[in-house]
Amino acid sequence: MSNQFIKKVAIVGGTHGNELTGVYLIEKFKHDLSLIQRDSFETITLLGNPKAIKAGRRYIDTDLNRCFKPQYLQNHQLTYYEQIRAKQIEKYLKYQEVVDVIIDLHTTTADMGISLILNDSHPFLLQLSGHLCYLDPDLKILQYSTNSEPSQLRNLAKIGLAIEVGPVPQGVLKADIFHRTEALIMQILDYIQNYNCQQITNIPKNLTLYKQVGVMDYPRDENNEIKAMIFPTMRDYQPLKSNDAIFIDFKGNTIKYQGNSIVYPVFVNESAYLEKGIAFSLTMRETMMI
Amino acid sequence: MSNQFIKKVAIVGGTHGNELTGVYLIEKFKHDLSLIQRDSFETITLLGNPKAIKAGRRYIDTDLNRCFKPQYLQNHQLTYYEQIRAKQIEKYLKYQEVVDVIIDLHTTTADMGISLILNDSHPFLLQLSGHLCYLDPDLKILQYSTNSEPSQLRNLAKIGLAIEVGPVPQGVLKADIFHRTEALIMQILDYIQNYNCQQITNIPKNLTLYKQVGVMDYPRDENNEIKAMIFPTMRDYQPLKSNDAIFIDFKGNTIKYQGNSIVYPVFVNESAYLEKGIAFSLTMRETMMI
Repeated sequence: MSNQFIKKVAIVGGTHGNELTGVYLIEKFKHDLSLIQRDSFETITLLGNPKAIKAGRRYIDTDLNRCFKPQYLQNHQLTYYEQIRAKQIEKYLKYQEVVDVIIDLHTTTADMGISLILNDSHPFLLQLSGHLCYLDPDLKILQYSTNSEPSQLRNLAKIGLAIEVGPVPQGVLKADIFHRTEALIMQILDYIQNYNCQQITNIPKNLTLYKQVGVMDYPRDENNEIKAMIFPTMRDYQPLKSNDAIFIDFKGNTIKYQGNSIVYPVFVNESAYLEKGIAFSLTMRETMMI
Repeated sequence: MSNQFIKKVAIVGGTHGNELTGVYLIEKFKHDLSLIQRDSFETITLLGNPKAIKAGRRYIDTDLNRCFKPQYLQNHQLTYYEQIRAKQIEKYLKYQEVVDVIIDLHTTTADMGISLILNDSHPFLLQLSGHLCYLDPDLKILQYSTNSEPSQLRNLAKIGLAIEVGPVPQGVLKADIFHRTEALIMQILDYIQNYNCQQITNIPKNLTLYKQVGVMDYPRDENNEIKAMIFPTMRDYQPLKSNDAIFIDFKGNTIKYQGNSIVYPVFVNESAYLEKGIAFSLTMRETMMI
């Protein structure tokens, strides 16, 4: 990718139908394309899950952003609405429009501030991340485990990233979250423009990444019902060490973290992950040279 | 009601299936009934909308907490799940268990702190509210318009109230919100016990009520799509006067409040009200002698 121009960028909103920031940003961009146009590349927009957006729900049949594993995309016996929609989106972004970069817009109910989510260590993504952290030191870079085949929409392009902003409840459009997401999109588009023009500046030598290493489910009873809540002091991106309180059960008993190394929880109290058996994700913090 | 004992109290959770605080409080109480038992009256519990709780949604077909108008309850041609469920609940709480008091547990995505919602000015409710405000000066008393026939579950009993706590996203169980709601329930049950024993103390002379006087919808375009967001400085229960900013459109233009009197918005950014055409409710603040 280095020394290679970026020709087409896709901005996607509403991959989850009740994450309204992305939905309304796409509507805004559609009404004024000049906002996302840059001289050296084309930008297109897409609403990921129109049916779920209309219904005001995360999804209709299944989570669209887990439908993009190549094996799923090739399997024509998968006929849930989102499984069919994933194939349409693959065709559109991969073979029709052939995008080089996907920016997928998400929100979270967790108090995570603003994060970029990457699936790999593509040098372009690391340098972009470094530049964006230089512009906004509060920005966090979250890297998902790449052990298994990635299943998210952003992986349809060689360079895929998600913007994740919170806290905002599902089904709510908050002006501050909207503006913060929009500003980050503009910074990314400007960076790509400068990259194409070989005018990149302000890339620090080091980048701090939060690498996902696992997930933690709620304590559950014999009927699989949750029997504790996340401890109120738990904070996203704050270090968690052995014997720190992580849950409190309904009787008031504290459950402590048992682990040998310091970890950094993310997606603490993410509404959509309750059904996935995830109370929060665990990451390791790592600073690398880029 | 004065000089009359209260014999039976119902605590209801999960009237909205994705408001988890009430759902899990009911589960907790079911496992340890001694928590809600008092000598002078009986307390029963109920999960309002089991099917919606299981689905993790506010409702299946329609908002259960708008199905309790007498005319709806008498109409057997209304066959949505919630319309049928409302009739079952009416039968149970009004004719089978015959409860005197209903405490309906709700949460909101709005940053409203903790509120009691009343539908009328029953002297018992006003004195209870005064006592609870004495115990917690941060508690707000919200009175809904009584112009029309009330449609909420709490109106099945002569004394009905809702506890409304936020901010918490739908589908999220937060320990601090859970504990705050539980503490308020205990204060209400203790008050009823003391009332029955004619040992009521600590009722202030005055009570401040926020009386709902209207609702404000989002600005919308010709396709009925919202074209602005709530202005970031808008706060629940904070005075709003003429020319204060209330919305910001997607281009950054501010829309100002045009009203002659000071009002106090509530349910600012309540997720479930977007589909009802409500950006926030407007209340008038009034202090009355009780």
